Amino acid sequence: MGTAWIENLKEMIGSERVSTSEGELFRHSKDESFHPPVQPETVVFPESTQMVKDIVDFVRERNLPITPYGAGSGLDGQAIPVSRGVSMNFDRMKKVISFTPEDLSVTVQPGITRLELNREINRQGLYFPIDPGADASIGGMAATNASGTTAVRYGSMRDQVLNLEVVLADGRIIRTGSAAKKSSSGYHLNGLFTGSEGTLGIITEITLKLHGIPEHTIAARCTFDTPKHCAAAAQAVLTSGIPVLRIELVDAPSIKQVNAYGDYHFPEQHSLFFEFAGTQTSAEEEASFVEELMADMGCGNWERASGSIERAEIWKARHELAYAFRHMKGKEVVGSDVCVPLSKLADMVDFARGQIEASGLLGSVFGHVGDGNFHTIIVYDPKIPEEKQASETINEQLILKAIEAGGTCTGEHGVGLGKIKYQEMEHGEALEVMKSFKELLDPGKLLNPGKIFI
Amino acid sequence: MGTAWIENLKEMIGSERVSTSEGELFRHSKDESFHPPVQPETVVFPESTQMVKDIVDFVRERNLPITPYGAGSGLDGQAIPVSRGVSMNFDRMKKVISFTPEDLSVTVQPGITRLELNREINRQGLYFPIDPGADASIGGMAATNASGTTAVRYGSMRDQVLNLEVVLADGRIIRTGSAAKKSSSGYHLNGLFTGSEGTLGIITEITLKLHGIPEHTIAARCTFDTPKHCAAAAQAVLTSGIPVLRIELVDAPSIKQVNAYGDYHFPEQHSLFFEFAGTQTSAEEEASFVEELMADMGCGNWERASGSIERAEIWKARHELAYAFRHMKGKEVVGSDVCVPLSKLADMVDFARGQIEASGLLGSVFGHVGDGNFHTIIVYDPKIPEEKQASETINEQLILKAIEAGGTCTGEHGVGLGKIKYQEMEHGEALEVMKSFKELLDPGKLLNPGKIFI
Repeated sequence: MGTAWIENLKEMIGSERVSTSEGELFRHSKDESFHPPVQPETVVFPESTQMVKDIVDFVRERNLPITPYGAGSGLDGQAIPVSRGVSMNFDRMKKVISFTPEDLSVTVQPGITRLELNREINRQGLYFPIDPGADASIGGMAATNASGTTAVRYGSMRDQVLNLEVVLADGRIIRTGSAAKKSSSGYHLNGLFTGSEGTLGIITEITLKLHGIPEHTIAARCTFDTPKHCAAAAQAVLTSGIPVLRIELVDAPSIKQVNAYGDYHFPEQHSLFFEFAGTQTSAEEEASFVEELMADMGCGNWERASGSIERAEIWKARHELAYAFRHMKGKEVVGSDVCVPLSKLADMVDFARGQIEASGLLGSVFGHVGDGNFHTIIVYDPKIPEEKQASETINEQLILKAIEAGGTCTGEHGVGLGKIKYQEMEHGEALEVMKSFKELLDPGKLLNPGKIFI
Repeated sequence: MGTAWIENLKEMIGSERVSTSEGELFRHSKDESFHPPVQPETVVFPESTQMVKDIVDFVRERNLPITPYGAGSGLDGQAIPVSRGVSMNFDRMKKVISFTPEDLSVTVQPGITRLELNREINRQGLYFPIDPGADASIGGMAATNASGTTAVRYGSMRDQVLNLEVVLADGRIIRTGSAAKKSSSGYHLNGLFTGSEGTLGIITEITLKLHGIPEHTIAARCTFDTPKHCAAAAQAVLTSGIPVLRIELVDAPSIKQVNAYGDYHFPEQHSLFFEFAGTQTSAEEEASFVEELMADMGCGNWERASGSIERAEIWKARHELAYAFRHMKGKEVVGSDVCVPLSKLADMVDFARGQIEASGLLGSVFGHVGDGNFHTIIVYDPKIPEEKQASETINEQLILKAIEAGGTCTGEHGVGLGKIKYQEMEHGEALEVMKSFKELLDPGKLLNPGKIFI
């Protein structure tokens, strides 16, 4: 099939909403992952649910693949249009559709990013706390079931989604939930479409739970001799029942990298970063309790920051970590995102660090250890095939070990392209059930083809 | 078809696991709902997942319906075998399969009840907090997505389920999740099977999140002039961000009933009941904060109970409330379970109270107002058709108004038999998607037929 259809598409939705410029094709060929870029044939910029539906009807009639694109911050290729066709960009669907502070909820279009959303709602004393680091779009976050540093307190995207409007492959527009805080009515489509990575339908509206901005926040950090000690300490905090806002592991090589990249001066040792939030009394009480607990476990360098600049610096450094590695000149990276039961975490982290050391490569171990979720980033020289091979082997060993431990190959980045091959091992017979849902809702395999399973 | 197949069933799984005694058929004909009983043809008592699978294979080959039965405490007829056939009782599948306190999780068979489970785990300082009042089975609670008084803090069953083992209609045994605390891997089958009321598969194992038992708990109650004031006060507490453990509305007629039924002496006025839990400091701080807030809103009779006997009495009274009404001699009841956005709650409660007053019937308004979820119980004389009609009309009006307000016909009891007719209004086109999942997984309509949709 040629590209004459692009002209028809322009006629249908207006040429100002369709682009085939080199710049746009390039931008929509990739995300923040290590997967090779693939350019779409065209990029569309819908401005309403109806327009999304019209485009879906259009591509279905012509058997063209379509891949939704949010902020391009995904980490496993979900937004890469591997079968080409149409990339659907949500930059022009960023509206807050309704905001009722007294319901602690907001309804938005998918293109709005989490920082844009917070700018709209913070003045009412509310915030949307899910924080994957990048300024991802809410639609993309829902599609991947993203989470991040605050999941230990608030859960993942799926825990925030009250309702979705979704355009199905056959052009039907459905609502998956309601505005009620809880429901036992019908099958839970909210949870099914959240995290389906655009393969079951295209999300056009999201109703989210919001939370009160805590009155007082305290950041703290401390160091341990090994990453394994850090993980064991994190587990102790969690089982104590303290509702920490964040608890992050950052290993020594990562701290070193962050110091160099951002001109910080953190002690270059394996570290835990904390955030406590609540009333001043409760935050202080929690911080003191954890300080004692960490001392009992042999930590060093406990340091507390309640000033907001100092606090911001700590978390800015933590968020820059991945970028510091991903953007090293002439280097490429392989990243992992395993999540295991808390009791298996210390051993897993130890195993990861050991494998990286043994390979002689530069690599980082860090992550959301309060959830049993951590990442590795291994840096290799793409001109040296052995380095690439070694990084991929470590990545694979980690995943296999995580699944064996009862965990998952992806805690928050999604399956995308990189974890397709582990789906059968992780889900067994259930994978066939998932595939049958896909077949039922998208028999033509038009919606984000090539993702989650083939 | 005669009942010769019952002999075959006995041969297959042993006659001691199959009953056709009048007593068992009667027990399995009903639950705690107002729906008329229907007796199964036989009751089976499987003792393992394999046996559940064998029975499912058996009924599928003979086209016999099968209805799972937990503790019989359901409130909308989910366990009533309306098409007769086989009732599957889980009394012999009550094992704790694995308990790893350091993971804050436990894996159990479906027949164990929530109190039995808590007895096993409390000694480790952990508890399973979901509390629907009745001592329901964990399998039944998962199947209905039950919640109750603590949902305002911990969410519903769906928020607790990490993994399910499910026997599908075609005999496949799948696992819907993993032991990891969070996952972005594949479609969220956990959420889909939780709350599917036994219509998509039979749950044979459940892995649940657990929580630390709070160190200190304070109960309190206060009164307001109208139920509407109570609801507005509850909304104020919620938007303040205080993480209350429970916040319950009990209106004056309900208090009166409880006092009479249980020999309590609560002030017979519209009341809010609270529970605060955490460290002693945080619980005290929260209770004082809420005391002030309630005083600002004009409450009366604020009373705080931190002694455990007094606390237990308050919550025992609250839990006895529904029984007090449901078990009035010679009377029957109609109950509702709507859930609406918090901002609509005060008006809804006001509307419910007004309708009951206008009908002249005895009726109660109470519930989990922190979630926007409340119940009505209207008592009528089954010998007077007008009374029955009037109660059902009020029930229906409440449901229609809740759906119109963006809410749901059922916050926690499930659809069962009574809310089938509201499914299309609530879910619209999404109902067809739900039905297509049912058709896909259970084309013979053998699993709990006649529930959720027809």
